[in-house]
Amino acid sequence: MGRAQVLVVAGTHGNERNAPALLERWRREPRDLDCAGLPVQLVLGNPAAHAANRRYIDRDLNRCFAPELLADLTQQPLELQRARELLAQFAPTGANPCAVAIDLHSTTSGMGNSLVVYGRRPADLALAAGVQARLGLPIYLHEADAAQTGFLVERWPCGLVIEVGPVAQGLLSAPILRQTQLALEAVFAVLAEAAAGELRLPAGLQVYRHCGSVDLPRDAAGEAIACVHPALERQDWRPLQVGQALFWQPGGQDCPAEWRFDPQTLGFPAEAHWPVFINEAAYGEKGIAFSLCRRERWASEGAWLEALQALMAA
Amino acid sequence: MGRAQVLVVAGTHGNERNAPALLERWRREPRDLDCAGLPVQLVLGNPAAHAANRRYIDRDLNRCFAPELLADLTQQPLELQRARELLAQFAPTGANPCAVAIDLHSTTSGMGNSLVVYGRRPADLALAAGVQARLGLPIYLHEADAAQTGFLVERWPCGLVIEVGPVAQGLLSAPILRQTQLALEAVFAVLAEAAAGELRLPAGLQVYRHCGSVDLPRDAAGEAIACVHPALERQDWRPLQVGQALFWQPGGQDCPAEWRFDPQTLGFPAEAHWPVFINEAAYGEKGIAFSLCRRERWASEGAWLEALQALMAA
Repeated sequence: MGRAQVLVVAGTHGNERNAPALLERWRREPRDLDCAGLPVQLVLGNPAAHAANRRYIDRDLNRCFAPELLADLTQQPLELQRARELLAQFAPTGANPCAVAIDLHSTTSGMGNSLVVYGRRPADLALAAGVQARLGLPIYLHEADAAQTGFLVERWPCGLVIEVGPVAQGLLSAPILRQTQLALEAVFAVLAEAAAGELRLPAGLQVYRHCGSVDLPRDAAGEAIACVHPALERQDWRPLQVGQALFWQPGGQDCPAEWRFDPQTLGFPAEAHWPVFINEAAYGEKGIAFSLCRRERWASEGAWLEALQALMAA
Repeated sequence: MGRAQVLVVAGTHGNERNAPALLERWRREPRDLDCAGLPVQLVLGNPAAHAANRRYIDRDLNRCFAPELLADLTQQPLELQRARELLAQFAPTGANPCAVAIDLHSTTSGMGNSLVVYGRRPADLALAAGVQARLGLPIYLHEADAAQTGFLVERWPCGLVIEVGPVAQGLLSAPILRQTQLALEAVFAVLAEAAAGELRLPAGLQVYRHCGSVDLPRDAAGEAIACVHPALERQDWRPLQVGQALFWQPGGQDCPAEWRFDPQTLGFPAEAHWPVFINEAAYGEKGIAFSLCRRERWASEGAWLEALQALMAA
């Protein structure tokens, strides 16, 4: 059995309080977390932002891990320095090397418990498929979006985000705490099986492939003039119908045609009718009211399992 | 008919986005707000915090209106300066005098649409009773809490807070927008009737009288070690039962006795079993997991109506 270490990051965003509360608990009571025998490193992602109860101080830490940004030493915002610190400590070439990074997040959107995977690295897909086989969690596959890059887990050979909602920023919530722990322990169980050479993947996995994002309608000054339509709130992972009202504004009598769902007008393929991150409060500043996915079923590939087992047994 | 002006404040807290969005809409489309013929001043409470999408910059603006604080010119945090500006502009002795102040807020707690009244000023009680007779909204009467003072509306001869939730900070929500407008228009209708000498009060009103607040259990370092019990979430305005679990912690098997509801142990009268502001995210830093009220029915007094009519007809 291998001794590959797993890095667990909580509080990458300082106003997401549930994972840091779990981390504090597990440090005090290590037996409360079932690591399936794996060596685990627990770390608070952004201590300064956590202390301030803000998403970030200078910039979003979870967009700081793009190689060109990390390499540009003329840039020294707090979060970029923190990203370099985390890598110096826990990257596979770091002082305390980890092979896998699990980044724990929460969202104000009603997505429930889900996994976020960046790109199509075989080891990531093996891990996600294994967790989906255990818990049935939806997988949001984020790729090919030039507007959003530099995610933390991309700098480790294998890694994914556990995303749980809805919960307001700054708030602890029992369901969010429970679901976060449930997903993390499933990740450990799958990784331990891979380390032991005992992991069997399901025949396939279902992914929601990110196609792009849609912003709220805004005025010339950039202020939102409408909000997500009430019939769309909390409808993450449910297909949109063509013609469905997307936005609503106070005093507006009828929903204008341009606020109704039409993937073509929005510049998306017809299959991109699965919304996620509906009403994520932190995405207002990113110009995202929700993202659109296409749902696909992929057959498992032998290379996925090999990649994850090689990594964990190393 | 009098010409007393009504001040409407939105965005006293910069991360509460719904009332400012309404304000923007009403400025663009004045006919979208039914002021019942009253002259109304619309103002953004804390523009700097709104621009930063933070509750406040230096300190909570809605705790800056204590007379001794306002008078202490050695203190110049941004919000205290803003409080003095608002008073110089809109106080009854200001450049653009208003007789009534309505302060629009949102909360992450599941309180629905409610009114907050500070103390027992006759004109406030007349206004609240009139709105309750129209919409049936619960009234949270805040008084005698030395830990929380300096609310904005206290510096006007009459005023109350419209509080609507649940909504995460930083987020627009159609139900919150709708309910805020509904309550505000009911306030205008009652004030217009008072101005015209046509207001009739109901026989009485029901109030939830604030008795005090309960914090999350914390460790020696001040970190919360538990969250509100899942059975208590979204139970605002519903009576607690003695022995009911108040808090929950990950990994905790049983709820310890000291985390079960007992008003005596908490130092409250037995009648103080009506919780409000359960899981308000902004109250973490104030050490408030929820507040406890006693519910009372008060007979209307003739002096209430006289006070409000005199003010509005002036």
